[in-house]
Amino acid sequence: MTRRPRILVINPNSNEAVTEGLRQAVKPLSYAEGPEIVCTTLAEGPFGIETQEHVDSLAIPLRRKIEATNDADAFVIACYSDPGIHVAREGTSRPVFGIAESGVLTALARAERFGVIAIKSRSIPRHLRYLRQMALMDRLAGERALEMSVAETATGDKTLERMIEIGRQLRDLDGAGAIVMGCAGMARHRKPLEEALGIPVIDPTQAAVTMAIGTIAVG
Amino acid sequence: MTRRPRILVINPNSNEAVTEGLRQAVKPLSYAEGPEIVCTTLAEGPFGIETQEHVDSLAIPLRRKIEATNDADAFVIACYSDPGIHVAREGTSRPVFGIAESGVLTALARAERFGVIAIKSRSIPRHLRYLRQMALMDRLAGERALEMSVAETATGDKTLERMIEIGRQLRDLDGAGAIVMGCAGMARHRKPLEEALGIPVIDPTQAAVTMAIGTIAVG
Amino acid sequence: MTRRPRILVINPNSNEAVTEGLRQAVKPLSYAEGPEIVCTTLAEGPFGIETQEHVDSLAIPLRRKIEATNDADAFVIACYSDPGIHVAREGTSRPVFGIAESGVLTALARAERFGVIAIKSRSIPRHLRYLRQMALMDRLAGERALEMSVAETATGDKTLERMIEIGRQLRDLDGAGAIVMGCAGMARHRKPLEEALGIPVIDPTQAAVTMAIGTIAVG
Amino acid sequence: MTRRPRILVINPNSNEAVTEGLRQAVKPLSYAEGPEIVCTTLAEGPFGIETQEHVDSLAIPLRRKIEATNDADAFVIACYSDPGIHVAREGTSRPVFGIAESGVLTALARAERFGVIAIKSRSIPRHLRYLRQMALMDRLAGERALEMSVAETATGDKTLERMIEIGRQLRDLDGAGAIVMGCAGMARHRKPLEEALGIPVIDPTQAAVTMAIGTIAVG
Amino acid sequence: MTRRPRILVINPNSNEAVTEGLRQAVKPLSYAEGPEIVCTTLAEGPFGIETQEHVDSLAIPLRRKIEATNDADAFVIACYSDPGIHVAREGTSRPVFGIAESGVLTALARAERFGVIAIKSRSIPRHLRYLRQMALMDRLAGERALEMSVAETATGDKTLERMIEIGRQLRDLDGAGAIVMGCAGMARHRKPLEEALGIPVIDPTQAAVTMAIGTIAVG
Amino acid sequence: MTRRPRILVINPNSNEAVTEGLRQAVKPLSYAEGPEIVCTTLAEGPFGIETQEHVDSLAIPLRRKIEATNDADAFVIACYSDPGIHVAREGTSRPVFGIAESGVLTALARAERFGVIAIKSRSIPRHLRYLRQMALMDRLAGERALEMSVAETATGDKTLERMIEIGRQLRDLDGAGAIVMGCAGMARHRKPLEEALGIPVIDPTQAAVTMAIGTIAVG
Repeated sequence: MTRRPRILVINPNSNEAVTEGLRQAVKPLSYAEGPEIVCTTLAEGPFGIETQEHVDSLAIPLRRKIEATNDADAFVIACYSDPGIHVAREGTSRPVFGIAESGVLTALARAERFGVIAIKSRSIPRHLRYLRQMALMDRLAGERALEMSVAETATGDKTLERMIEIGRQLRDLDGAGAIVMGCAGMARHRKPLEEALGIPVIDPTQAAVTMAIGTIAVG
Repeated sequence: MTRRPRILVINPNSNEAVTEGLRQAVKPLSYAEGPEIVCTTLAEGPFGIETQEHVDSLAIPLRRKIEATNDADAFVIACYSDPGIHVAREGTSRPVFGIAESGVLTALARAERFGVIAIKSRSIPRHLRYLRQMALMDRLAGERALEMSVAETATGDKTLERMIEIGRQLRDLDGAGAIVMGCAGMARHRKPLEEALGIPVIDPTQAAVTMAIGTIAVG
Repeated sequence: MTRRPRILVINPNSNEAVTEGLRQAVKPLSYAEGPEIVCTTLAEGPFGIETQEHVDSLAIPLRRKIEATNDADAFVIACYSDPGIHVAREGTSRPVFGIAESGVLTALARAERFGVIAIKSRSIPRHLRYLRQMALMDRLAGERALEMSVAETATGDKTLERMIEIGRQLRDLDGAGAIVMGCAGMARHRKPLEEALGIPVIDPTQAAVTMAIGTIAVG
Repeated sequence: MTRRPRILVINPNSNEAVTEGLRQAVKPLSYAEGPEIVCTTLAEGPFGIETQEHVDSLAIPLRRKIEATNDADAFVIACYSDPGIHVAREGTSRPVFGIAESGVLTALARAERFGVIAIKSRSIPRHLRYLRQMALMDRLAGERALEMSVAETATGDKTLERMIEIGRQLRDLDGAGAIVMGCAGMARHRKPLEEALGIPVIDPTQAAVTMAIGTIAVG
Repeated sequence: MTRRPRILVINPNSNEAVTEGLRQAVKPLSYAEGPEIVCTTLAEGPFGIETQEHVDSLAIPLRRKIEATNDADAFVIACYSDPGIHVAREGTSRPVFGIAESGVLTALARAERFGVIAIKSRSIPRHLRYLRQMALMDRLAGERALEMSVAETATGDKTLERMIEIGRQLRDLDGAGAIVMGCAGMARHRKPLEEALGIPVIDPTQAAVTMAIGTIAVG
Repeated sequence: MTRRPRILVINPNSNEAVTEGLRQAVKPLSYAEGPEIVCTTLAEGPFGIETQEHVDSLAIPLRRKIEATNDADAFVIACYSDPGIHVAREGTSRPVFGIAESGVLTALARAERFGVIAIKSRSIPRHLRYLRQMALMDRLAGERALEMSVAETATGDKTLERMIEIGRQLRDLDGAGAIVMGCAGMARHRKPLEEALGIPVIDPTQAAVTMAIGTIAVG
């Protein structure tokens, strides 16, 4: 392969502000000698991904997008429900990472038990079902929701404040030793949240891109 | 921090050839703009780590080594038994990665179920006990041993051949969809093994260094 | 409600012969005083459902079908991968049953451990992932495949013979005390298979329709 | 078989009012073309089944009753502790359903996690032990007790009110998405309870009779 | 309490030869200053305990026996199915030990994974169900049967030979690091079996009596 | 063996008062005809064992101590973190018991679910990790800490009072049916605590010594 290796990070919602947030998230992982990391927006995506319908409607478009992309060596599906991850993997021999999966696996390397900050509580049963599917429930301390809209978390000043509040509950009431931010758009809050809580905080997109880098580097 | 960030990869055995193998393993992950990755040999280590006694005798020396290292930002303990990982973590606020833990977690992002290639079968109960401790047994397809000495795997021509044989058993008889090489010194065999088996093969040192890079990058 | 209650059994593949097989399957459960059981073919379905792509491509069409159906009181998704079951449930307050889920749950009322006969081995990882998601792995004795095409199972004379052979392996080698037929089109083989094996055999469509009848009856 | 198939529902306590309640419970499942559903009282039973001694004293009488019954094609043991279920199954090739087992399995087809309403808290450890035996603990949201006597639940006006209160706790504090009524005599409260809670409520006797109907229909 | 403390070991079958075998089994645990250990035969017991019917028929007689025994401080139910253990515990505040439970718990202190030698394979599903109930399945290496009658094991010369054969299979094929003899009458074979296998062998009656001694001593 | 069998109970901390407490703990288990029970202090031990560093620093000294002890037939490591248990077992064919392991296993013979009283909450994650390693989490009701120093528990008058308070929380809030005292120095409080709580209380040293006695007696 003579071209520079490339990781394609796909924002499956159609909110360009989130894609821009992904670009900020992956910047620290972009090395001149390493793979190019390209963040893109899935045209077919809904503005926000809040329901099972949103999630399932994305599976085939994500598969198509990945099948049609010849110039990427690894893919990251950047939505905390990992939409279409299995069908995407079926459609390519190139590695596909889901940010929920990568985020949780990375948290397991940092603490005995992890907590998850969800945006809305209605997503929690879906997340727990996925953790059961991955057989990773035994080290979940708990998942708690901000109860904010995606829009609010993107723009509101109160987001970090609320995340610290929920993170403290996960740490102090549930016993979490690390926190996974259960959303694709929270990376800018990672460091201040970690500093406020004093325990590792994982941005799941950064976790997935890290795994993709490692896979490409040795490939 | 004005100095360049640094990951210290510690070979807890005193076999310099293994440390040299680690240097080769991490080379693809060494970016000019990324953290420096330094591989070192633990002076106190035995020549090979084959018993629980070897493993447990390393815990405190590893802790001391890490406590005494002021110029590293993350640590990798490069032995597939993750000696001293909990005591090392207790002794520093900087992240410490064990290659067994990182290797298995990374495999979980690549396949439904993973297999492990051990050097000797006497290590398998120890590895399984550790998987139970991490609550990661449910997705283990199986672990099988080369039944070679560490010396043989380091020097013998037959090592790759034997790894392919065992890898096929894990894939075909046990149902493994990805393979973790259960040893610190096998990185040079990763790619040919992956090509022979047609499923992802994880070198655990590379997996741990990858996680360390990701942690430092966003830190 | 003045009209007669109705269960809509949806064959998500477009093979009318399978739908006709479903009609035969549910006939013994059709009581004049009970709900009407209507079997229908999903127009959008592929001819056979053999891949994750097939499964995931059906989720939204099934949701739409269910949302657009005002004259049914319960739904059965008649494919052993339970395509779209969660998104379907999200879209209606009426009960939705998946035949894989109902088949396995019913088998758990008949034996300590159950076995599953799959059509093709490539479906088995998908089925196991779903069992993990349902937290029902602990009582699985095993899953084994006929390694026939859906077409062969539908028409070939050798199907029952092969099912008996695989069923015996599940019973004798894996310790299954009951068998779930892992396919929507096998109902006519249920009784001869049960007689040949001497242990309960569950047709999953009949299991799901039974649960639907019970739910409607008391509703 | 020329006679009409028959399901024998055995109330293992000697309280005829409970048996009468069972008759009301199964009425909606009685179809002219379906199996006859006969509810009977076990002569040897205690007036109420509240202790392990009550439960265990019923095992052999239930076995004898079933062995002596030639004119039934399936049996339902209508006590939420499923007394004698394994010994009964050993003694007949005809299917035997326990209402606790059937109730829980049916709830698993309706929600991610289920809650159980017990009559008295002293039964809860016994119920949990049984859930562990069935390997169905992972999806239990919780079990909470009315703390009423069987007599009170049978006659008191306050029963439904108390069930709604406990059901709300299971739903809101424990996260139950469906409720199993952990008693044989609560069927008349099923529908109002379901309406009050807005989530599926399972009467376990109806669940077991439903499974028995399905088994006989295809047999 | 001025009388000497007493442990009552109850053989729930009516085979006096087994009771005599229990007396030999507990002799090494009988200390002049320790509790008296009395072995007795349950009058109501069947000659051998081979079925669920045998097991369940013993629950209430064992409860009655224990309730009627005023001069014992702890009880051991000496049948590897632990008949009536929960109902017995409900009926007394004095500790009741089952030999299956004690045998398995003791094995867990001797090896990573244990194997069980059953007399007949028909008991294995019952034993596994009990292990599930105790939540102790995860460390079971396997259970294999001698396929001998209780009478044969009691008198035949070939018993030890066969136990060694099965024990080797558990050790070498299943990975057992300790063996539990799944029967009340095998104590005389414990030591030669342990010597032949080179791994710990647990006689479950001795394990239960040991726990009873410990409980009484500190009581 | 002509000398009297001997159990060596090793206090791995260097606090002689704790060793003296062990001597009191094992006195009720010392029979003239049984093994001699000798309690000794590990010279290398820290004054108290409160951290992972303390625990891991003891592994090799314990191994050496055991290897160097020719006149003991079984060993008990008397610290509730079971330091060095696996390396000790590797180094001898004589049985080695850890008090945490034995304490928990013994509690499992006394109640459905057990609770643990820790000295300090910082030990709880370490204890839980060990329970996960032993695959014994499923029956843990909870672990709660006294939040006292080892010194305070050894000397303070308030210790029993505080233990009763915590024991009541484990019993009433967490549902524990038996309590394990998570410390080597609490034996004198066992009986009054048991009387205050009305449920079995296990001193883990006594539990381990009991298992050692049983093993030696039949050996």
